[in-house]
Amino acid sequence: MSFLSRLECSVPCGAPPCDPRGSHHLCSCGMPLVARYDLEAAARAWRRESLSGRPPTMWRYGELMPLFEGEAPVTLGEGFTPLIHATRLGRELGLPALYIKDESLNPTHSFKARGLSAAVTRARAAGATTLSVPSAGNAANALAAYAAAAGLEAQVFMPRDVKAPFVRECELYGARVTLVDGLITDAGRAATERGGPLGWYDVSTLKEPYRLEGKKTMGYELAEQLGWRWPDWIVYPTGGGTGIVGMWKAFDEVEALGWVPRGRRPRMVSVQAETCAPIVRAFREGAARAHPWENARTCADGLRVPKAIGDFLILRAIRESGGTAIAVSDREMVRDMKAMGALEGVSAAPEGGATLAALRRLRADGLINTDDCVVLFNTGGALKYLEVIGE
Amino acid sequence: MSFLSRLECSVPCGAPPCDPRGSHHLCSCGMPLVARYDLEAAARAWRRESLSGRPPTMWRYGELMPLFEGEAPVTLGEGFTPLIHATRLGRELGLPALYIKDESLNPTHSFKARGLSAAVTRARAAGATTLSVPSAGNAANALAAYAAAAGLEAQVFMPRDVKAPFVRECELYGARVTLVDGLITDAGRAATERGGPLGWYDVSTLKEPYRLEGKKTMGYELAEQLGWRWPDWIVYPTGGGTGIVGMWKAFDEVEALGWVPRGRRPRMVSVQAETCAPIVRAFREGAARAHPWENARTCADGLRVPKAIGDFLILRAIRESGGTAIAVSDREMVRDMKAMGALEGVSAAPEGGATLAALRRLRADGLINTDDCVVLFNTGGALKYLEVIGE
Repeated sequence: MSFLSRLECSVPCGAPPCDPRGSHHLCSCGMPLVARYDLEAAARAWRRESLSGRPPTMWRYGELMPLFEGEAPVTLGEGFTPLIHATRLGRELGLPALYIKDESLNPTHSFKARGLSAAVTRARAAGATTLSVPSAGNAANALAAYAAAAGLEAQVFMPRDVKAPFVRECELYGARVTLVDGLITDAGRAATERGGPLGWYDVSTLKEPYRLEGKKTMGYELAEQLGWRWPDWIVYPTGGGTGIVGMWKAFDEVEALGWVPRGRRPRMVSVQAETCAPIVRAFREGAARAHPWENARTCADGLRVPKAIGDFLILRAIRESGGTAIAVSDREMVRDMKAMGALEGVSAAPEGGATLAALRRLRADGLINTDDCVVLFNTGGALKYLEVIGE
Repeated sequence: MSFLSRLECSVPCGAPPCDPRGSHHLCSCGMPLVARYDLEAAARAWRRESLSGRPPTMWRYGELMPLFEGEAPVTLGEGFTPLIHATRLGRELGLPALYIKDESLNPTHSFKARGLSAAVTRARAAGATTLSVPSAGNAANALAAYAAAAGLEAQVFMPRDVKAPFVRECELYGARVTLVDGLITDAGRAATERGGPLGWYDVSTLKEPYRLEGKKTMGYELAEQLGWRWPDWIVYPTGGGTGIVGMWKAFDEVEALGWVPRGRRPRMVSVQAETCAPIVRAFREGAARAHPWENARTCADGLRVPKAIGDFLILRAIRESGGTAIAVSDREMVRDMKAMGALEGVSAAPEGGATLAALRRLRADGLINTDDCVVLFNTGGALKYLEVIGE
């Protein structure tokens, strides 16, 4: 039984909370809505020991997931991905407690499966028939797969220069693909223009409240897999930023459940591409929001996000955690996706490689101690990016 | 604690059993060796309830896995893959209890991860430093990843016309790739010629005894995921055939543990390509072994195996199970990898599509009843095969 009770503005703007059932997108103020649970009741009723024996998917955290009595999730086995102890990289970096959370073992080969499993579950319950999303690649693949599993139509909008495997995978799942000149932000505009009049259900990240609920489970899993403690550092590649925002929400919730001690949260490190680093720039400037990045480009498609609607939430989480934001070059990303492969056998996207590149920087700067527990997020696998390791 | 006790000839030829530690390849008679456990002691000591709460990898079945006290497996999170209830395909086929075991959610995107996790674990324990394998593609990727994780060198031999992603993925993990004119059998000869004098450790399937132990866990998982009963039918794409042989071994073991009732095993359906169907031909001819297939070709690289060393074990399992063997065309495979994608959101290789094509045939022939529980094995995902769905 889920303790989901209401949706609230993420700012918050003061608008009254609303019923989580039905069709929901942004708050009336234009900002993201966030799902809230009756955490006190959940803390009384739910013991972490009950998780033992539940299926190894993100839906094992059902009491704090958006699923009502009598509903079944749209699931393909997403979540509860391996937390790999990276002993060989750890030796190289002098970090015995280095881990890689390998999100490539999700359906559609990336962390995007989590958010779309949750969003498609709720969209189907709300009666939607056509779902649309703008995407740099992986979110389109995930929507396409979950819409297929749910028997719904998927309309995906991607930049025209997206790598071919992303397009092919969408087609495999029977999605309708539209390629748009420009970036994901332009794709978003095109999706809204086309789908608005037709009543398509927009599952853009943070423009509906449930992708965040899927993404937050990465935080739950870290705590469970580390024996109910947090790591000292989480190094996370940041495009739309829903992962950081979701994990920060998970920290609130898991603390409220009483499953981890309060007040010793991980420091969050946001990693972006040097050639598209709006969050890094805003973090350094001390700004609450990020300006759109001009001429964004990088081989890490998931990082090619010039403007994130949840920028203020990302920046808040980084700062509250005592973390930082770092930009790395494409060359460093590709070098380190190869290092993850050759030293740990992990299939990493450039986004995953970026976290290792950032970690090297943090180690060199003396920010991370040798006895710190560090988790790198490999948000997706290498298979759709093989062209970048061509040489 | 593992109850592994000895290695025995699979025929059996009468050679005495040998100690499972150390370096092992074929029996002195030239046939595969098989790992045997003290099943009586295991049945007394091990309860299936103890599985609850163990990590969701194939190593959860540690008591009947090849791992000795004090050893750690070389693991990347392989196994315990989702068993997806294929409700939409099931409706189309009139099979409410249709499932897809989705092996694409393994490391390196295929079921080959299981066997290589086990084999590399034992090879490292035996002191090997360079591991070699001939492969149609996926086994090479898996060896490359696990060798990297173990800090060992991987030498992989593949047909020259293998699809590019298989080569690139090997390179990502730092493996040495040799492309060979011909098929996997020719690659095997080349690997032996080159590696024999150099003392490379050959991890060809069934030429060492532990890949089978990894593969058998697919059988354990089916029982656990279905609530400790077997399905009525298992439809399995067959190249080297280690999966069928391994699952048949799992049925023996799980029955000996007393975890499922004896004597109601699944019927095993072996699926091959029309253009490379040595097992199907031998099954129809009533032969105990299969002749090499001439001019083998198919877009399903994993099925392009003209001769399997374990052919007699495959044929024995199919016959003892009351199953059958079916060949399907490349066109049917590709059609049905798209059907798995569009109806279930599952990323299927042509080999996975082949199982659906075979199921349609079995249904049309009236061999499978509407209330039968059927499991299709999707042995790998679509991402390395995207070129075949190009049109």
